[in-house]
Amino acid sequence: MITDRTQVTAMIQSAKISKGIKWSEIAVVIGQSKEWSTAACLGQMAMTKEQAEGVGKLLELSDEAIAWLQIAPYKGSLPTEVPTDPLIYRWYELVSVYGTTLKELIHEEFGDGIMSAIDFSMDLQREEDPKGDRVHVVMSGKFLPYKMY
Amino acid sequence: MITDRTQVTAMIQSAKISKGIKWSEIAVVIGQSKEWSTAACLGQMAMTKEQAEGVGKLLELSDEAIAWLQIAPYKGSLPTEVPTDPLIYRWYELVSVYGTTLKELIHEEFGDGIMSAIDFSMDLQREEDPKGDRVHVVMSGKFLPYKMY
Amino acid sequence: MITDRTQVTAMIQSAKISKGIKWSEIAVVIGQSKEWSTAACLGQMAMTKEQAEGVGKLLELSDEAIAWLQIAPYKGSLPTEVPTDPLIYRWYELVSVYGTTLKELIHEEFGDGIMSAIDFSMDLQREEDPKGDRVHVVMSGKFLPYKMY
Amino acid sequence: MITDRTQVTAMIQSAKISKGIKWSEIAVVIGQSKEWSTAACLGQMAMTKEQAEGVGKLLELSDEAIAWLQIAPYKGSLPTEVPTDPLIYRWYELVSVYGTTLKELIHEEFGDGIMSAIDFSMDLQREEDPKGDRVHVVMSGKFLPYKMY
Amino acid sequence: MITDRTQVTAMIQSAKISKGIKWSEIAVVIGQSKEWSTAACLGQMAMTKEQAEGVGKLLELSDEAIAWLQIAPYKGSLPTEVPTDPLIYRWYELVSVYGTTLKELIHEEFGDGIMSAIDFSMDLQREEDPKGDRVHVVMSGKFLPYKMY
Amino acid sequence: MITDRTQVTAMIQSAKISKGIKWSEIAVVIGQSKEWSTAACLGQMAMTKEQAEGVGKLLELSDEAIAWLQIAPYKGSLPTEVPTDPLIYRWYELVSVYGTTLKELIHEEFGDGIMSAIDFSMDLQREEDPKGDRVHVVMSGKFLPYKMY
Amino acid sequence: MITDRTQVTAMIQSAKISKGIKWSEIAVVIGQSKEWSTAACLGQMAMTKEQAEGVGKLLELSDEAIAWLQIAPYKGSLPTEVPTDPLIYRWYELVSVYGTTLKELIHEEFGDGIMSAIDFSMDLQREEDPKGDRVHVVMSGKFLPYKMY
Amino acid sequence: MITDRTQVTAMIQSAKISKGIKWSEIAVVIGQSKEWSTAACLGQMAMTKEQAEGVGKLLELSDEAIAWLQIAPYKGSLPTEVPTDPLIYRWYELVSVYGTTLKELIHEEFGDGIMSAIDFSMDLQREEDPKGDRVHVVMSGKFLPYKMY
Amino acid sequence: MITDRTQVTAMIQSAKISKGIKWSEIAVVIGQSKEWSTAACLGQMAMTKEQAEGVGKLLELSDEAIAWLQIAPYKGSLPTEVPTDPLIYRWYELVSVYGTTLKELIHEEFGDGIMSAIDFSMDLQREEDPKGDRVHVVMSGKFLPYKMY
Amino acid sequence: MITDRTQVTAMIQSAKISKGIKWSEIAVVIGQSKEWSTAACLGQMAMTKEQAEGVGKLLELSDEAIAWLQIAPYKGSLPTEVPTDPLIYRWYELVSVYGTTLKELIHEEFGDGIMSAIDFSMDLQREEDPKGDRVHVVMSGKFLPYKMY
Repeated sequence: MITDRTQVTAMIQSAKISKGIKWSEIAVVIGQSKEWSTAACLGQMAMTKEQAEGVGKLLELSDEAIAWLQIAPYKGSLPTEVPTDPLIYRWYELVSVYGTTLKELIHEEFGDGIMSAIDFSMDLQREEDPKGDRVHVVMSGKFLPYKMY
Repeated sequence: MITDRTQVTAMIQSAKISKGIKWSEIAVVIGQSKEWSTAACLGQMAMTKEQAEGVGKLLELSDEAIAWLQIAPYKGSLPTEVPTDPLIYRWYELVSVYGTTLKELIHEEFGDGIMSAIDFSMDLQREEDPKGDRVHVVMSGKFLPYKMY
Repeated sequence: MITDRTQVTAMIQSAKISKGIKWSEIAVVIGQSKEWSTAACLGQMAMTKEQAEGVGKLLELSDEAIAWLQIAPYKGSLPTEVPTDPLIYRWYELVSVYGTTLKELIHEEFGDGIMSAIDFSMDLQREEDPKGDRVHVVMSGKFLPYKMY
Repeated sequence: MITDRTQVTAMIQSAKISKGIKWSEIAVVIGQSKEWSTAACLGQMAMTKEQAEGVGKLLELSDEAIAWLQIAPYKGSLPTEVPTDPLIYRWYELVSVYGTTLKELIHEEFGDGIMSAIDFSMDLQREEDPKGDRVHVVMSGKFLPYKMY
Repeated sequence: MITDRTQVTAMIQSAKISKGIKWSEIAVVIGQSKEWSTAACLGQMAMTKEQAEGVGKLLELSDEAIAWLQIAPYKGSLPTEVPTDPLIYRWYELVSVYGTTLKELIHEEFGDGIMSAIDFSMDLQREEDPKGDRVHVVMSGKFLPYKMY
Repeated sequence: MITDRTQVTAMIQSAKISKGIKWSEIAVVIGQSKEWSTAACLGQMAMTKEQAEGVGKLLELSDEAIAWLQIAPYKGSLPTEVPTDPLIYRWYELVSVYGTTLKELIHEEFGDGIMSAIDFSMDLQREEDPKGDRVHVVMSGKFLPYKMY
Repeated sequence: MITDRTQVTAMIQSAKISKGIKWSEIAVVIGQSKEWSTAACLGQMAMTKEQAEGVGKLLELSDEAIAWLQIAPYKGSLPTEVPTDPLIYRWYELVSVYGTTLKELIHEEFGDGIMSAIDFSMDLQREEDPKGDRVHVVMSGKFLPYKMY
Repeated sequence: MITDRTQVTAMIQSAKISKGIKWSEIAVVIGQSKEWSTAACLGQMAMTKEQAEGVGKLLELSDEAIAWLQIAPYKGSLPTEVPTDPLIYRWYELVSVYGTTLKELIHEEFGDGIMSAIDFSMDLQREEDPKGDRVHVVMSGKFLPYKMY
Repeated sequence: MITDRTQVTAMIQSAKISKGIKWSEIAVVIGQSKEWSTAACLGQMAMTKEQAEGVGKLLELSDEAIAWLQIAPYKGSLPTEVPTDPLIYRWYELVSVYGTTLKELIHEEFGDGIMSAIDFSMDLQREEDPKGDRVHVVMSGKFLPYKMY
Repeated sequence: MITDRTQVTAMIQSAKISKGIKWSEIAVVIGQSKEWSTAACLGQMAMTKEQAEGVGKLLELSDEAIAWLQIAPYKGSLPTEVPTDPLIYRWYELVSVYGTTLKELIHEEFGDGIMSAIDFSMDLQREEDPKGDRVHVVMSGKFLPYKMY
């Protein structure tokens, strides 16, 4: 009996490693970007019935697991408030170092409000560079203004 | 006597508000992007002598404050591990929700290693959209592989 | 020199207590609801120039304080992650006890997404009741769906 | 052997997902509002014998599980002090941003005391809106004054 | 300028020590029990105008301090989640060791609900004992049942 | 194999719920107050051989479990520093709100020292009240003075 | 105005350093052991009137400071839960490494109960040793048994 | 398969309770003091082959467990930073209350440095006392001076 | 089914202890330094196919475990933010005590930037010394300057 | 009046920045390595009278500050358990990632014990490298074995 969505994530990770499948291949089956598809497999997004069945077939998941993939999961992928993994920590560090800068510049351009993390998309690409290739990430989130009432 | 770099940040914030100057105007004086310049003013980067004197003149800072601007500061701009400000929290949430996704996709593309938060640049723009303008952020960081030894 | 928005909040609290003014009276000067107006005075919203000048005149604030009221503040009004004040703790407890219930019911009605805390309004009223009057709060937040991309 | 009420919550979640049953359907069996019923299933309220047996029959729970449903549970539905799930975090953020506002306005209206989180009810509805439907929540809690003694 | 209720608590502590006044003497001026009166002086209860003026006169507080005493304070008297002072820690330890016992016995007697910490009174007396005098504390709080809705 | 006293607590809870036995009935078998007996069952006190065997017989525990009941357990019954359960939280809140009051009044009456949480007893009763029954708790702890040396 | 006992500790530290006085000399004035006397000066014990006046005269403290020395202080001398100072950390480490050992051996010898930290004395001496002198500490605390009731 | 040293500690605890063996009896088999032997069994010290085999025979441990006993374990015996068990907490409290005192007196006697928690021994005895027996603990640790370089 | 890389670390630890193999022997099979090889086995580095198969053969790991060894793991080897193990704590203490010193000296020599923890190597050797052998560690990390943009 | 050693550190930082003096120049005055000298100035080591007077003269410190420099300070140079500054964080990350590796290798070479952080020295140099200069750090700490007793 599956009692937690993280069990399904573990099943996916385990099957993916055993079968040697790539996230970009899973994304083709899901029919969305590799960013959205990976997040969905890792328990951060809910899939449609078709998407869940596609992933389930590719990774040989049980029907119960496929049912769980269609449920909005309890989100948040990190085991600690400050992530210990160096790759993920660098992103936390960017928020720590540039957090007030992002705040100041968004307010200067848009006024009081936030950038949405829900109406949001992300694209990650390799940027070739003779001094060492770079990770190039584009993020786009809708600006949501605070309203008076 | 200034005993802490955060005092200089407070002086800059206070003078900027009183004088009604914009970060983009300060960036022109510094001669770098608005992103780097804002971060530097907020105590996350060290300025050259010329940059510090330019900012000092614009905001009428004391010589002591100008000296502090040239010192590599103790970085990290947030008062708590999990930021409470909604705008900055959304960025933390992106790391929380997409952290493992970023890790998986960077490893799939580049192998084991990290995206540098030091050899890094960022550009923030308004993206016009009929359904509501968006915050468009491009981040570029050098990939640094773990090496065997 | 004011170096932090919380200093302005303290000035407002102090002047309000000394002068014996009510939040609902301040709201009239601001021209918005008592909920929004109180939050703005307590450092959670940015005022327009007219609103800030109105509050400044009523409470005899300095020009510098009035300038700070127009800046988007670093939000979050509580000194600890779990609030110690009993009144505020009850609200935290509601999130703790009913958090997963809210999540389940919103997902059941709307699908995966969130209720916005930005495009949001709140109204608090006394509800008369022979067994003891009640606090009656209506909250309304736009549903924001996660999108595939 | 069931040794913890959270195991029963997991059984309920698992059965509900496998059978494709809705919370509102479970509420009909329980005979209370969908808000109370969901909270009770998620381990935040104690059921009567009849309610527990009704849920047990609908979801095919064991007699032991049905016995546990009638016991007052150790409450608190969130795994961390600051919730990581974006939907639930928005509620935490409302407490963080509006906590002092709620405190000020309740004290202004009622004097020193609290709004009860026990003698409390909640109703959540979809509010149709051409600019995007809204989540409309009404909360009602008895005001409890501090008494002198 | 007083900007925080804790400043008034410090003034009261300081004046009380300098003048050598007892809490029981302050309670006489306030006209309530020594328990309520001490809590009120330490920033946990709001006084009436008469009570605040009485305390103010006795301890030679400023008018501004007397105004603050009449405001419902941000409650919670301890600087850390787990108190470090040995006397107060013993009370925390009682909650830690006997917390689940209190829960079980109250539920067994009353059903699901809580003992109110608002509609609550406390009386502390010396209990003479040949093997060493004892601290005898009587606490009385209204039982508040969870209700279905 | 039992490897932790908390497993025995879970066995007791589970058997008690299945068999529908009350804490006051268990206390009769143990031959101590319901307060001490409940605490002992919940892993906060060590039983004598006779007490353990009596409980073991009543709840059909294994010999190994009965052996564990006679060992002084690692005490502390709460999973988090700040308890999330509303009933137990109210007791934590009492320590938070009244902690410094208890300290001041005990010092005023007895001098520097503490109230013992070891040489301690507690009695919990229903107090009938037309405005709603009350939980009436009497606590008695030996005063232990700090000594000079 | 002194508003906190830690201010008196700072005054004592500052005067002691400026005057070049030793703790053992202060202990002579107080008339107790160097261990108790140092703890009292550092805000962990309350002095008698004579002791406080003796220390006050030696270190040229104000009358207000002398009054504060006679009050039972809010105890706990460390700024963080886990001490950062290496000397003090070693003591924390002893509790961490040997904590369960102390528990097992005291229970084996005495039964369930604790070693008092109130009815307690300590003596610290240099122990000469050809391989390097040693710190020799003797601690003596009354055993307090848990009692049934 | 044993995957963690804490599993061996649990096996030892469980066997010791079932067989009714004392720590002092285990110490005889190990051939060291009861303090060191207990710490070693509880996962804080590494045993020699002979010691491990002796303990293994006495408690009927598997060969795998005996192998683990000879490995330097990941030390630290407490589940939380601040221990919840009252007996162990009293030791934590001693560090909290007397930590700065120990620091001052060791520095006064020896200069800057620490008392070693590695080159350390401890002896715990019952001290008979007509007013109640006492726990008498002698600790001896080598003083290690900070050196200039 | 393996669902987490830490399970593979536990398998390696367990097999290594049972077989009595040394880290330096494992390093020969891997063909890298003992430092890198140990870190890789403990779940901090990703191995090549050949390295993983070599380790797998030596320690008799399953094919699934061998597959997991080739995946970039979620790094961070410690269970708590402040490590409790005395050996590892000493390293944390070095960061705590010397952290600002390292920062000052690296900035004085190189300007603003960091020492890489990715482009990094480490060598640990026994340094013989008549006063007691020493642990001699050489660390080398690339300096990465912050760049303006 | 100086009441805390951190005030002296701030004075030193402030004077050093204003006067444009290097740590290596201060080290010459102190007569020890730049590593030890910087740590001493930053409040982590105690100076001799001559060293303190030398630094005091160079940086024009008051006599009181010079007296404080000779006192063993409360050590630990970081404001948070996990450092936020990227340069210092990388060192924390090394402990996090390589902590268990250091433990395993030191135990394999030396047996159970620790590397001293007190009988310790450190040397930091620029290592020229065509692919980018490196920070080269040599650390040497005495091995201290756990002893049986």
